[in-house]
Amino acid sequence: MVALVEPPGTPVLELDTPALVMDIGKVEANIARMAAFLADKTCKLRPHVKTHKTAVLAHKQIAAGAVGMCAAKLGEAEMLVEGGVRDVLVANEIIGPKKIARLVALARHSDIMVAVDEADNAALIGAAARAAGVTVRVLVDVNVGQNRCGAEPYEPARRLARQVAETAGLRLCGVMGYEGHLVFLPDREEKGRKAREAMQKLTETAALIREDGLECGIVSGGGTGTHEFTAAYPGVTELQAGSYITMDGRYRDLGMPFDTALTVLASVVSRQRPNTVILDVGMKAISHEFGLPYVLGVPGAKVTRLSEEHGIVELEDPSVPLRPGDRVFLLPTHGDTTINLHDRYFVVRDGVLETVWDIAGRGKSR
Amino acid sequence: MVALVEPPGTPVLELDTPALVMDIGKVEANIARMAAFLADKTCKLRPHVKTHKTAVLAHKQIAAGAVGMCAAKLGEAEMLVEGGVRDVLVANEIIGPKKIARLVALARHSDIMVAVDEADNAALIGAAARAAGVTVRVLVDVNVGQNRCGAEPYEPARRLARQVAETAGLRLCGVMGYEGHLVFLPDREEKGRKAREAMQKLTETAALIREDGLECGIVSGGGTGTHEFTAAYPGVTELQAGSYITMDGRYRDLGMPFDTALTVLASVVSRQRPNTVILDVGMKAISHEFGLPYVLGVPGAKVTRLSEEHGIVELEDPSVPLRPGDRVFLLPTHGDTTINLHDRYFVVRDGVLETVWDIAGRGKSR
Repeated sequence: MVALVEPPGTPVLELDTPALVMDIGKVEANIARMAAFLADKTCKLRPHVKTHKTAVLAHKQIAAGAVGMCAAKLGEAEMLVEGGVRDVLVANEIIGPKKIARLVALARHSDIMVAVDEADNAALIGAAARAAGVTVRVLVDVNVGQNRCGAEPYEPARRLARQVAETAGLRLCGVMGYEGHLVFLPDREEKGRKAREAMQKLTETAALIREDGLECGIVSGGGTGTHEFTAAYPGVTELQAGSYITMDGRYRDLGMPFDTALTVLASVVSRQRPNTVILDVGMKAISHEFGLPYVLGVPGAKVTRLSEEHGIVELEDPSVPLRPGDRVFLLPTHGDTTINLHDRYFVVRDGVLETVWDIAGRGKSR
Repeated sequence: MVALVEPPGTPVLELDTPALVMDIGKVEANIARMAAFLADKTCKLRPHVKTHKTAVLAHKQIAAGAVGMCAAKLGEAEMLVEGGVRDVLVANEIIGPKKIARLVALARHSDIMVAVDEADNAALIGAAARAAGVTVRVLVDVNVGQNRCGAEPYEPARRLARQVAETAGLRLCGVMGYEGHLVFLPDREEKGRKAREAMQKLTETAALIREDGLECGIVSGGGTGTHEFTAAYPGVTELQAGSYITMDGRYRDLGMPFDTALTVLASVVSRQRPNTVILDVGMKAISHEFGLPYVLGVPGAKVTRLSEEHGIVELEDPSVPLRPGDRVFLLPTHGDTTINLHDRYFVVRDGVLETVWDIAGRGKSR
C-alpha cells in the first residue's frame, strides 16, 4: 500500500492528519545556532542521529561543521553509511557475533567507531576485524555518573584502554561519557556544576590514558541539555547533542536556546461536549513519557489524556469554535520518540509543504 | 537498507535483538479460546486489527468465526482490504474530504462500514458515496460513558440514525459503543455491572431506532477487558475485542483467560555493577505507558527504568549470571503500542522461528 501524501506546495493546514511537520527554516536556524555557539570553541559537534534519523539532515549538520555523526544503534549507523556519511560513532556497546559482523562490514564502507566498556567485547570485535582485514576505531565508554553502560572512570577505564590499544584490529581513539542523568536538571547552576564534575572524570581519565603513551584524541560527551557546559569544558573535543535540531516541549521548558521545529498536525474528529475536543492524534502518533503534548495556538486548551488514536483536549472556553475537520498543532514533549512513531516528515517552509522525507532510521532498534 | 532477519528454523534464543517475538501456538490457542467462548452466544466476534495490524492474523480470526474486522484508522482498513478482508468496520469518525474520498474508494473494493457521530459528517460521506456511485455502511457511534467520540445515547443517537437512514449513499446498519473506560477496572463485579449499564444504553438506543422502522441489525461494542459481560448482554451482536489475540502484561494482571503470546527479546549489553543489568530494549522498542515491562524467567529481576534504547534491570540477587550477549524475554504491559514500534513479528513455534511477518498496519495513524 503506497502512502498517500500531498504534493509540494500544499499549505500546511491542508495536509491530512496526523502529520509530523518539520519546520525546515527553524531546523536550519537551529543548525546554524549550534554551529555559531561552537565556532570559538575547540569542542566540535558530533550530532546524535537518534533524534532526526535521516541522512539528509546529517549532511546538513556536517556541512555546518560537525565532525561526523553518532548513532545509538547499529541500524542507525547503517542507515547513515548507506546515506553517504563516513564518520559515524556508534555511541553504544555492540554485542554478539551477528552485530559485530555488521559492525565490521561497516568498517569497509565508512570510518566507523564504536564504544566498548569491557575487555571481552573488545577482544571479539578485534578478532572479527582482523579476520576481515579491517580496523575498527574504538572509544572507551566511561560511566560519568549515569550508571547505565560504561567502565568506571580512572583505573578501570585506563585498564580497558590498554587492552583495546593492545588488540590488533582495533584502534583506540579516545573516550566517551554521557552525562544523561543531568540533561533535564531544571536548575542551571546545579546542572553546570554536575556537568563539569562529570567531564572532569572523563578528561582526567583521558589524561591517565595518555600517560600510558596511548592515543586519546577524542573526548566525547554531552547532550542538548548540557551542551553549554560540556562543550566549554577544557579537554572535551566532541559534543553529542541531538535534540537541538528539532527541539521539543521538554527542552523548550528548560529554556534551551533553540526553536521548536517539530509539531504533529492533528484534526478535530469529534466535538460532542462544549468543553471537550477529540483529536485524531493519540499515543500511536505522539509520545507522552515526558508529559502530555502541548496544544499550540488555542488559548486555554490542554491535552488531558491520550488514548491510542485519540487526543482528548479540554477547553477553558467552550466558545472556542473548533469543529470536526479543524486543524490543531501539537508540540510533542519528546521529539526522539515521537519521530520514531512516524514514517515520514512533512517538511514545511513558511507554512507550505516543501518536500516529504522518509524517516529511514525509524525503528532501527537492532 | 534491507533488514537482516534470520531464516526459519533459527532457535528463538539465537535471534538478534531487539526482536518482537510472537508465539504463534499461543496466538492460535487464544483465537480458538475466544471462538469457543462465543460459540453458544448470539454475539459474534469482530476483532480489532489495531492490536496485531496484519491481514494474515485477521484471516485466521475470520476462519475461526469472526464476522469481519474492525480498524481504528482508515489506513488500517486499507491494509486489511489490500490483504483481502472484505467486511471492515472503521470504528471511528472519518473526517475531511481526503479521508472521505479514501473511504469511498474502499467501498469499491470491500464491504466497508464506518462510525459517525454527527449529521454533518454523515451528509458529507453520503454525498461522496453518491458521487462515486457506491453505498457506505454506517453505524451510529454512541457514547456509552467513555466520553470520547459518540453521539449521546437515546434521542440524540436516534435522531442521527434517522438522518443517516435518510441520506442516499449511506446504509444505516446499526450502532456501536465502546465502553473503553471500563476495560481495565480491576474489580470484576464492578466491571460487570458497569459494562451491563453501558450495553443497556446501547441496546435501548438500538430499540428506539428500530421503533422508527429503521434497520439496526448490528449492535457492536466491547473490548478484551469486558468481553465476558458485553458478549453475554442480550442484544449485543458484535464484540470488538482486539488484545485477546496476543495479550499483554496489563491484561494478564487482570486475569483475562488468554495466554501472553507476545514478548520482546532483549540482549544484555552491559553489566558493570553486580545488581544492574543493561538491556538493548528501551522505549523505542517496548512501550511503558501502562507500566514498565516484566522480565520473564529471571527471579528477582525488575525493569526499573527505560531510556530510549536501554532497559535498566535491577537484580535482587547479584549472583545471577547474566553477561553481555545473554538473552532476556520482556513482557510488554501494552501490546498494541509495543507492536506499533516494530516493523515485523518473529513468529515462533515451540521455540523455533517459523516465519517473519511484516506489520503492515504499523504507523497507519492516518
